[in-house]
Amino acid sequence: MKLADIGVTGLAVMGANLARNFARNGYTVALHNRSQEKTDALMDAHGSEGDFVPTSTLEELVASLQRPRRVLIMVKAGNPVDQVIDQLVPLLEEGDIVIDAGNSHFEDTRRREAHLAEKGLHFVGVGVSGGEEGALNGPSIMPGGSRESYDSLGPMLETIAADYEGDPCCHWVGTDGAGHFVKMVHNGIEYADMQVIGECFNLLRGAAGIEPAEQAKIFEEWNSTELESYLIEITARVLAHEDARTGKPLVDVVVDAAGQKGTGRWTVVSGLEVGSPVSAIAESVFARALSSQADVRAAAREAFGGDITPDVSEGDKDAFIEDVRQALYATKLVSYAQGIDMLQLAAKQYGWDLDIAKIASLWRAGCIIRAELLDTIMKAYAEDAQPVSLLLADEFRASLEKALPAWRRIVAHAATTGIPAPVMASSLAYFDALRAGRLPAALTQGLRDLFGAHTYLRIDAEGSFHTNWSGDLTEVVGVDTH
Amino acid sequence: MKLADIGVTGLAVMGANLARNFARNGYTVALHNRSQEKTDALMDAHGSEGDFVPTSTLEELVASLQRPRRVLIMVKAGNPVDQVIDQLVPLLEEGDIVIDAGNSHFEDTRRREAHLAEKGLHFVGVGVSGGEEGALNGPSIMPGGSRESYDSLGPMLETIAADYEGDPCCHWVGTDGAGHFVKMVHNGIEYADMQVIGECFNLLRGAAGIEPAEQAKIFEEWNSTELESYLIEITARVLAHEDARTGKPLVDVVVDAAGQKGTGRWTVVSGLEVGSPVSAIAESVFARALSSQADVRAAAREAFGGDITPDVSEGDKDAFIEDVRQALYATKLVSYAQGIDMLQLAAKQYGWDLDIAKIASLWRAGCIIRAELLDTIMKAYAEDAQPVSLLLADEFRASLEKALPAWRRIVAHAATTGIPAPVMASSLAYFDALRAGRLPAALTQGLRDLFGAHTYLRIDAEGSFHTNWSGDLTEVVGVDTH
Repeated sequence: MKLADIGVTGLAVMGANLARNFARNGYTVALHNRSQEKTDALMDAHGSEGDFVPTSTLEELVASLQRPRRVLIMVKAGNPVDQVIDQLVPLLEEGDIVIDAGNSHFEDTRRREAHLAEKGLHFVGVGVSGGEEGALNGPSIMPGGSRESYDSLGPMLETIAADYEGDPCCHWVGTDGAGHFVKMVHNGIEYADMQVIGECFNLLRGAAGIEPAEQAKIFEEWNSTELESYLIEITARVLAHEDARTGKPLVDVVVDAAGQKGTGRWTVVSGLEVGSPVSAIAESVFARALSSQADVRAAAREAFGGDITPDVSEGDKDAFIEDVRQALYATKLVSYAQGIDMLQLAAKQYGWDLDIAKIASLWRAGCIIRAELLDTIMKAYAEDAQPVSLLLADEFRASLEKALPAWRRIVAHAATTGIPAPVMASSLAYFDALRAGRLPAALTQGLRDLFGAHTYLRIDAEGSFHTNWSGDLTEVVGVDTH
Repeated sequence: MKLADIGVTGLAVMGANLARNFARNGYTVALHNRSQEKTDALMDAHGSEGDFVPTSTLEELVASLQRPRRVLIMVKAGNPVDQVIDQLVPLLEEGDIVIDAGNSHFEDTRRREAHLAEKGLHFVGVGVSGGEEGALNGPSIMPGGSRESYDSLGPMLETIAADYEGDPCCHWVGTDGAGHFVKMVHNGIEYADMQVIGECFNLLRGAAGIEPAEQAKIFEEWNSTELESYLIEITARVLAHEDARTGKPLVDVVVDAAGQKGTGRWTVVSGLEVGSPVSAIAESVFARALSSQADVRAAAREAFGGDITPDVSEGDKDAFIEDVRQALYATKLVSYAQGIDMLQLAAKQYGWDLDIAKIASLWRAGCIIRAELLDTIMKAYAEDAQPVSLLLADEFRASLEKALPAWRRIVAHAATTGIPAPVMASSLAYFDALRAGRLPAALTQGLRDLFGAHTYLRIDAEGSFHTNWSGDLTEVVGVDTH
C-alpha cells in the first residue's frame, strides 16, 4: 500500500473539507476521527474524489504516513488539541510534523511548539480562513512554526490554498505562534469590517430612509469601486434577501444581537498587551457585546426613545450615499492600519520577523476579509521603505485626504442625529489624534505627577521631573515612586 | 511587651504611610522590611507618632502580633507577593489573616485566597486608593476576602480610611478577589475621567483658543457644579501652574506621551472577559498608548498637518464652554455606567454579591475618582429597585436628557474640526446604540450565517435558523457548525 502524504485527524466539516482538498489536489490522505462514523461517512460520500486511507486509530494513522510524517489536527481549540498531541507524540519520530489547523490561541501554540521542539518534533500552528467553502476549495493559509518544517509542508499547503492571480494565499508567516496570531488579527479586522458595514447600513436607512433591497444595489455598486471585497459582496446578498415567511427583508426579522466566538476579543486583549491602540477592532467587539444586552437596551429604548427620523432630502441623497462610502473606506483603512500596527508591535514582542507585504498577500483571496484593498496594501509594504503606518503609505495618503471631508460630515451627522457609528467615530478620532500637534496626554502626565508622583518628561530637557505640588511648586529631578 | 494589633511588611512609601496611619489612630503596629534600613528610617523619622514595634525578621514580626495575627503585605504586585506569602505561611496559625494591600491582579488574589483557605488562613486582597497622601491620611479601602476576616480586620481598616460625612470609605466588598477587582475598575474609570478632562482641555483650546491659565479658572468654576471632584480640582491646579524655567504653562513643556502602569489595561481585558462593552475606558487606554507612539505621530503630523484653527467666536465662547461642560458630564456618566455594568457582570461570573451602592460610597472620598457624583450614584443604587443601567436611574435620566444636545454639538464639532475626542465620541455612540430601536447586529448575524453557517435567531419564532445561501435560499432549522 502506498504511504500517505498527510494524515488528518478530526473530521468535522472543516477537517473533512481540508482532507478532500488535499486529495483532490493529488495527495494521498490518511483519515482518522475519534468516532469511526465520521471517517466512514466521509469515505461513503467522497471516497472517490481521490486517494484516501481510512484508519481506525491514531496508531494506524501514523503507520500509514510516509516520513517525515505530517499529521494535521482539526479539533476544537483548547484542551482537545492537547489531548490529541499527547496521544500522538509517543507515536512519532524526530523530524515529524504536527499541524494544528484549528483556531487556537497563539500563546497555546507557542507553548505547544516549545514542548514538541524539545522532543525533536515540529509543531506548526496554521491559521486557516475561508470557512467550509474555503477549506474545500482554497482557503487563506497562515502557517507558523519552524522554517524547516515549511520546506516540507509548505508546498502541500500552497497547493490547496486559494489562488490570487497565480500566487497561492499561503506563505510561511513566522516561528511558533505567528501563524495563529496573524489569523487572530485577520479575525479582529473582520469584526471591524462587519461592524462598519453595519454602521453604513444603519446610516443609509436611518438618515436617508433607504430600505434594504435598495441598499443591496448600493453595496453591489460599491463592490465595483476600491471597496471591492467579499464582505461588501455578501452584504448585498444578505440585504437583497426577502424572508419567505413574512415577505420582509430578512435583516428585519433577524434578532439584532450579534454573537461572537472569541477571536475578536482575543485580538483586543493582544492589542492591549503589545500596546497597540486597536480602537476600531475594540469598538466592534463592544458593539457586539452591547447588542446582546437585551434588558438594558429595552429599558434605554423605553427611557430615551430609539426612533430616528430620516433627515437627508431626496436631492441630497446621492451625495450622502457617496459620503457614507468615503467614510466606510477611510474607516476601513484605519482598522487595517491598526491591525498592521499591532502585528508590527507583536513581532517585536514575540521575536517574529513578520513581513507585512506577505501577510497582506495571504489575505487577498480565500479568507473572509479578502479585498482588492489588500493587493494595494501588499504593494505599499513591498517597497524597501516601509511606511510607519498604513495611513501614511503613498498608496493611501491621497485617498485618505480625499475621503476626509465626507468622513467628518458622516461622523458629525451620526452624532447630531443619534445614529450610533462607534467604529467610524473612533477611527476618525484615532486619525485626528495621530496627526495632532499636541495631545492632552501632557495634562494627564501633570495630573499623574500631582496625585501619584509619577513624574513627567520635559520637551526641553533630559531626565524625568517632579513638581513639588503639595509644597512650594518647585521642580525636582524625579523618581517615580510607584 | 504589648503585642501589636497589626504587622506591616514592605515599608516603601505606601507601606510606611499605612503603618503610620494605623499608629496615629492608636493601634500598635509591628514593622518589617526585607532590608532593615527602611524600618530604621521609618522609626527615626516617625517613631514618635505612635506605638511601633520594629522587627528584623518575619519570624519576629509574626511573634510580635496578637491573635488572630494580622499581617499586611505592601510589596510590588506579582511574584514578590507570592514570595512573602510563602515565607509567612509556615509562621502562621489557623485563623490568622494575611492582607495584600498592593495593586494585585484579582485573579492572583483569587488563587492566593483559595491556597491560604486550604491552610485555614484568611487572605484579604485589599484595594487601596488615594496615593501616598491617602495612605497616610485616609485612603479609600476596598477589602475582599472572607466575611469572617472582615469582622476582625474591618474595624481597623475603617478607622484609618477616608471619611465622607461621618461614613468611613471602607466596607467589605465581597469574597476572594472582589476587593482588587473593584479597585481595578476604579482605576479604569480614573483613566476615562482623566482622558475626557484632557479632551475638554483640547477642545477649549483648539476650538475656542482658551489658554491654560484661563482654563484653570473654568475648571475651578466647574468644580462648584455637579462635576465637583478631585480630578477637576487638580486639573485646575496643574493648568494654573507656570513653569519656572520657561515662564510657559507647565502643561506646554511636558512631553505629551502618557504613561500607564497596567490597571487600565487590566480593566479593559476584564471587561472583554465578562462581556461588558467598556468602550470609554478602552478608548482612554488606547489614547495613552497612541500618545506614546512618537514616530507614527511625527510622520502623521508631517503628512496630514496637526494645526487646528479656533473657530468659536468670542460671542459664542460662553455657550461653547457650557456645551463642553455638559459633554464632560454626560461622558462621565457613561464611563461610570460602563464600570458599574462591568462590576455587575463580574459579580455573576465570579460569584460575588457586589453592592453597587456600597461600592459607590467607598469612592466618595479618599480615592482619585472621588466626586460628588458618587454620592448621587450611591443613592441611585441604594433604592430597592436597582436601575439596569446608571444612565436609567431617576437621578441621572433627566440630567442626561438635558446634556444631550450639548453633547451632540461637541462631538460633532470635534469631528468636523479635527480635534480628537475619542472618549466623548465613543460614549455618545454607546448611548445611542443602547437606546437604538434596532442595531445592525442583525446584518452581522446574516453575514455570519452566510459565510460561516453560524445561524441566527428570528424575532417571530423560537429556535435558531440558517438560510441555504449557497443553494435555493430556503430557511432551515439551524445547527451552528462552528
